[in-house]
Amino acid sequence: MAQLMEDQVFMAFTTHAAIVILKMILMGPMTAYFRFTRGSFANEEDVARKSAEEKKKLLRAHPDVERVRRCHRNDLENIVPFVMVGLLYALTGPELSAALLHFRVFTASRLFHTVAYVGKLPQPSRALSYLGGMLATLSMAYNVLSSVLIL
Amino acid sequence: MAQLMEDQVFMAFTTHAAIVILKMILMGPMTAYFRFTRGSFANEEDVARKSAEEKKKLLRAHPDVERVRRCHRNDLENIVPFVMVGLLYALTGPELSAALLHFRVFTASRLFHTVAYVGKLPQPSRALSYLGGMLATLSMAYNVLSSVLIL
Amino acid sequence: MAQLMEDQVFMAFTTHAAIVILKMILMGPMTAYFRFTRGSFANEEDVARKSAEEKKKLLRAHPDVERVRRCHRNDLENIVPFVMVGLLYALTGPELSAALLHFRVFTASRLFHTVAYVGKLPQPSRALSYLGGMLATLSMAYNVLSSVLIL
Repeated sequence: MAQLMEDQVFMAFTTHAAIVILKMILMGPMTAYFRFTRGSFANEEDVARKSAEEKKKLLRAHPDVERVRRCHRNDLENIVPFVMVGLLYALTGPELSAALLHFRVFTASRLFHTVAYVGKLPQPSRALSYLGGMLATLSMAYNVLSSVLIL
Repeated sequence: MAQLMEDQVFMAFTTHAAIVILKMILMGPMTAYFRFTRGSFANEEDVARKSAEEKKKLLRAHPDVERVRRCHRNDLENIVPFVMVGLLYALTGPELSAALLHFRVFTASRLFHTVAYVGKLPQPSRALSYLGGMLATLSMAYNVLSSVLIL
Repeated sequence: MAQLMEDQVFMAFTTHAAIVILKMILMGPMTAYFRFTRGSFANEEDVARKSAEEKKKLLRAHPDVERVRRCHRNDLENIVPFVMVGLLYALTGPELSAALLHFRVFTASRLFHTVAYVGKLPQPSRALSYLGGMLATLSMAYNVLSSVLIL
């Protein structure tokens, strides 16, 4: 049982997976923070105690909230595939150094991606960090398919 | 191979993961149900046989459909991380009682979250059920990182 | 460690999971392609070098871009659950033939789903391919819950 967690590659995967998932989860509270500070909500029951006029204002979309939500969705589109492919990749028994390279490139790319997205950094900072993460995942998927293939 | 499925913690994880994923998947048919009963579609080909005037009406967003879709997205943002972190957590070999506490709090929170969201229950019911699920996942992520750490 | 990857069912799962995740990831670059060819962006910094008038035009939503994004989101809602349930299903030790049937139906359905969605094929082609994938995942979830159940 604990066998997997004695494998260095699997432990490295677990560490990096936990970090990027944590980062992704925290986009939820960050969205809530922007909703409250910008006064922009999506549900009637969230503004139930306000007057009719205030409700109308508070139920409008705000660009800062939408930006955090796009960043969150981008995480779902990229971090979730990384964790799923990374798990399979770790199980194919790669070299620790090669595996660490993939995991580190991905984690660093995605941490910077959030800074670039939420901080509105000028392009191509966001595009490059997106690309870095994607290439790490694609490379792992290629490695998985070349070592295991049963259609 | 079947080794993992003889571990009590892993079996408990599997059960709870299957239940919350099932719940999440069923948001798809629920969205379809609301699209048909509310007459609100997103694609031209879905209303191909209607007259031009009817099409225009049917291609508008409807608040009930959007609500179910927000609930579905919230599931993606919370249930997917739970399953991924929960898998790694189960592999670190926690006590069965501690593991069950995490899994049960999460499953109960998310089932209630859907009822609160789709049923438009007054706040803070939805906020609290969201928080319950999030705390369970954060606690598991903390446990994973404190027992395994290879950067 | 490499034990799992010597199991035929797990290897088949890994192959199909890698293929559908790859397909899902590639919706990202496809969205970027449509954003550039249709001239429809979501972030101010993506159109920073344009004139004020051009910016306004380029920051509008375009139906083709929104279609690809809906297809991508549908993938997240269906492919991610497939991979998570499929992993647990593979670990319960099913017959290779039964497992392959589930995996093949899912992979074929989802590949066709993308063609039907992005290619705007007339209904019910998209609805049926959606249903095919969903039934494969539901059947695996049922199998998981009937062989493992610890609440």
